[in-house]
Amino acid sequence: MNAPSSLDSLVPDVQPREVPDVLIDALKTVFGDRCSTARAVREQHGRDESSFDVPPPAAVVYAESTADVSRLVQLAGQHAVPVIPYGAGSSIEGQLLAVQGGISLDLSRMDQVLSVNPEDLTVTVQPGVTRRQLNDVLKSDGFFFPIDPGADASIGGMASTRASGTNAVRYGTMRENVLALEVVAASGEVIRTGTRAKKSSAGYDLTRLIVGAEGTLGVITEITLRIHPLPEAVSAAICSFPSLDAAVQTTIQTIQLGVPIARCELLDANTVRLVNRHSHTELPESPMLLMEFHGSPTAVKEQAELVQELATDLGGNDFAWATTPEERTRLWTARHNAYFAGVQSIPGARAVTTDVCVPISRLADSLGAAIDDANASGIPYFMVGHVGDGNFHMGYLIDPADPAQREGAERLNQTLVERAIAMGGTCTGEHGIGLHKMRFLATETGEGSVAMMRAIKQALDPKNILNPGKIFSL
Amino acid sequence: MNAPSSLDSLVPDVQPREVPDVLIDALKTVFGDRCSTARAVREQHGRDESSFDVPPPAAVVYAESTADVSRLVQLAGQHAVPVIPYGAGSSIEGQLLAVQGGISLDLSRMDQVLSVNPEDLTVTVQPGVTRRQLNDVLKSDGFFFPIDPGADASIGGMASTRASGTNAVRYGTMRENVLALEVVAASGEVIRTGTRAKKSSAGYDLTRLIVGAEGTLGVITEITLRIHPLPEAVSAAICSFPSLDAAVQTTIQTIQLGVPIARCELLDANTVRLVNRHSHTELPESPMLLMEFHGSPTAVKEQAELVQELATDLGGNDFAWATTPEERTRLWTARHNAYFAGVQSIPGARAVTTDVCVPISRLADSLGAAIDDANASGIPYFMVGHVGDGNFHMGYLIDPADPAQREGAERLNQTLVERAIAMGGTCTGEHGIGLHKMRFLATETGEGSVAMMRAIKQALDPKNILNPGKIFSL
Repeated sequence: MNAPSSLDSLVPDVQPREVPDVLIDALKTVFGDRCSTARAVREQHGRDESSFDVPPPAAVVYAESTADVSRLVQLAGQHAVPVIPYGAGSSIEGQLLAVQGGISLDLSRMDQVLSVNPEDLTVTVQPGVTRRQLNDVLKSDGFFFPIDPGADASIGGMASTRASGTNAVRYGTMRENVLALEVVAASGEVIRTGTRAKKSSAGYDLTRLIVGAEGTLGVITEITLRIHPLPEAVSAAICSFPSLDAAVQTTIQTIQLGVPIARCELLDANTVRLVNRHSHTELPESPMLLMEFHGSPTAVKEQAELVQELATDLGGNDFAWATTPEERTRLWTARHNAYFAGVQSIPGARAVTTDVCVPISRLADSLGAAIDDANASGIPYFMVGHVGDGNFHMGYLIDPADPAQREGAERLNQTLVERAIAMGGTCTGEHGIGLHKMRFLATETGEGSVAMMRAIKQALDPKNILNPGKIFSL
Repeated sequence: MNAPSSLDSLVPDVQPREVPDVLIDALKTVFGDRCSTARAVREQHGRDESSFDVPPPAAVVYAESTADVSRLVQLAGQHAVPVIPYGAGSSIEGQLLAVQGGISLDLSRMDQVLSVNPEDLTVTVQPGVTRRQLNDVLKSDGFFFPIDPGADASIGGMASTRASGTNAVRYGTMRENVLALEVVAASGEVIRTGTRAKKSSAGYDLTRLIVGAEGTLGVITEITLRIHPLPEAVSAAICSFPSLDAAVQTTIQTIQLGVPIARCELLDANTVRLVNRHSHTELPESPMLLMEFHGSPTAVKEQAELVQELATDLGGNDFAWATTPEERTRLWTARHNAYFAGVQSIPGARAVTTDVCVPISRLADSLGAAIDDANASGIPYFMVGHVGDGNFHMGYLIDPADPAQREGAERLNQTLVERAIAMGGTCTGEHGIGLHKMRFLATETGEGSVAMMRAIKQALDPKNILNPGKIFSL
């Protein structure tokens, strides 16, 4: 693994491609004021939640229909100009950055819930629908869409990064919950993948290929999702532990026993302290599991009692319960705010976030070493974990103006990733590769596998116009 | 859709490629008596459970290692000769047939369970391990692998057809249960996809691309699977209904309420009659659901009571229970034998099987019309359904020597498939495309999507040596 010596060197050393005036003129003719070259608009679309500094795209086009997307892709293709799909701007690893120049394709106006099929437990949406918007629509019918990455991300973006989050331990990730797609291919052609049937053996699984492809194989213009009945009973609990290891061991045993826990999140003592300060909560400042149980009242009670028993054996406190929707919302808001609690704890700080996921038996080792390394480095951090899945995030809090801190954080990340891969894990559980993890992909999956991905990309996008320079260099 | 006028015309009109003597000589030198050109061996490997009549492969090679597979693929590639992976020979749609000639690659001797990781709920196996063999190994540790297509298929074959079967309604299909693969690419290179982590966002989902690719993109040489703890309690029940519609409506309501039923199988009255005659059972000869519930004793009781209530409201009888392992085995053996009960009910008959899967709300319409059509045609049939997933199989019992009957059965299948696709369903829930469903793929997914599949195939297998002529023409 060749480690770059600074974060900036993670940005590929590629000249942005020229975006000819004739293309901009054509876009303005076709899209009118839905094509903007205003500096502020371009800059807003030229960044995401990552720390990279890359010049913005040459223009931003707001699509309102699949036909718009197809037209844009065709026009850009004629000039071999990159097209970068943009949803809610919440990606973390540099997915939205115009590293090879080009046009940002803003899909946020394609925000219609096209059909809800409660009887089939499916819904079809446009890519700009956000997960909160979707859940507001579903709630009245007694359903919900469980994938919850924290941010109010767009469904198209969540599909593109194979997002997951707090509920994935029970309900799976976008991989399991996307049934079918409409996609604009690099040629501009509109294709469909999958059906509304729950399963299929009909040819190559193009749905799963495009989910997680970060917009490099096609622009997603419609998504059919599985939805789930709102559980009859929901209980949320927190449990404090004498040590991080005790909390992790409780998690491991819960998963190994097959308890269908719906959420199982870990904060270390340091992060609980940051959350208390930020959200004015009074959570006990020791390692803490935040859990949620879904099912019938009996099933929920049974699951909770079993996990309480495991926790007690490991020195955990009695569960503190949040059973009303309001209490639960408060609890999960505190959890979701952990990121902001961390970043805002140091004025001007930015977070370099990590995203490893390991087989659950290696979780204690992986997490313990990560925290030891962070403490030894002196770089402040927070940590949150979807530990039921073996996935956790360290957020290293750095001064973005201090290259030494950025490099220190990247070194910590590299050590963490290499350790996770050696344990049979992955460099990214849910954020995607983007720019930030490109250097780890071959280590994780081998050069042969990356070559296979590159061959697929070249076959489906021969002009390399769809979000080029992400996942692997090309 | 261009319907061929006879079953034989479903076999692509392609000349088998020449297999030069120099290749056979090289294979004999490398593999010794593990390369066979004996007629009986070739004929055994030149057919599966489908009704197609195709000349056998030129030779059969028995691989004992990944290195063997790689060597064979390299040698075949030098002469652009097809390689057709062969597991247990139980595929149904013609996947194993040497339609372009070539070498059958028998993987049944690669039958080692390489590692069991109970603490991570994963297992890694060679492709020739069968599902029963795997479950025998797992049982002693308190785990099981749920995917159960009926036949004692090989895990490699099950991955390649994206198999599912009776437990998929709760545990998912091979799509959800394969975590990682080792694959020999068309170049002979050995690549790895996925990791042992439960989830990942690391680049293109090559695992899911190769699962279901029917051996056309690579030869699977190692599979890492998710396993599940044996449930604390298991109860199986049968319930008879006054009408097929009542049984189907009970299923639909069970799924819509989110009951985590583990198995939910339907037999119509005609099929129950055939099963009774074949297996000497005395099941009531009316439409019947066979169900299984997994969980804690309380959860199992609660689920069963809820479904019983739904069934009773629709006129279903009281559940007849099978709670001991022996009773359950007897019940599921009777269900698994439905295929043989059908085929053996008419001396010399063969079954033309169908495999549509529809959104659950359309199950009653789809199934009812299929049975009406079969009755109107006068062709005897049986039907079994993984109805919890919206998937069912008609087995049309034909005299293989009577072209009119074969064409009649294919016409019934075509009507059934077209109706399922119009309902938002798929032509194949779990058997794959093979040869038999090729003509329906474009109808289901569109020409653009098939073109994308073809482009991927051409990029990854430029000499078209890996199981060519399956899924789509090439």
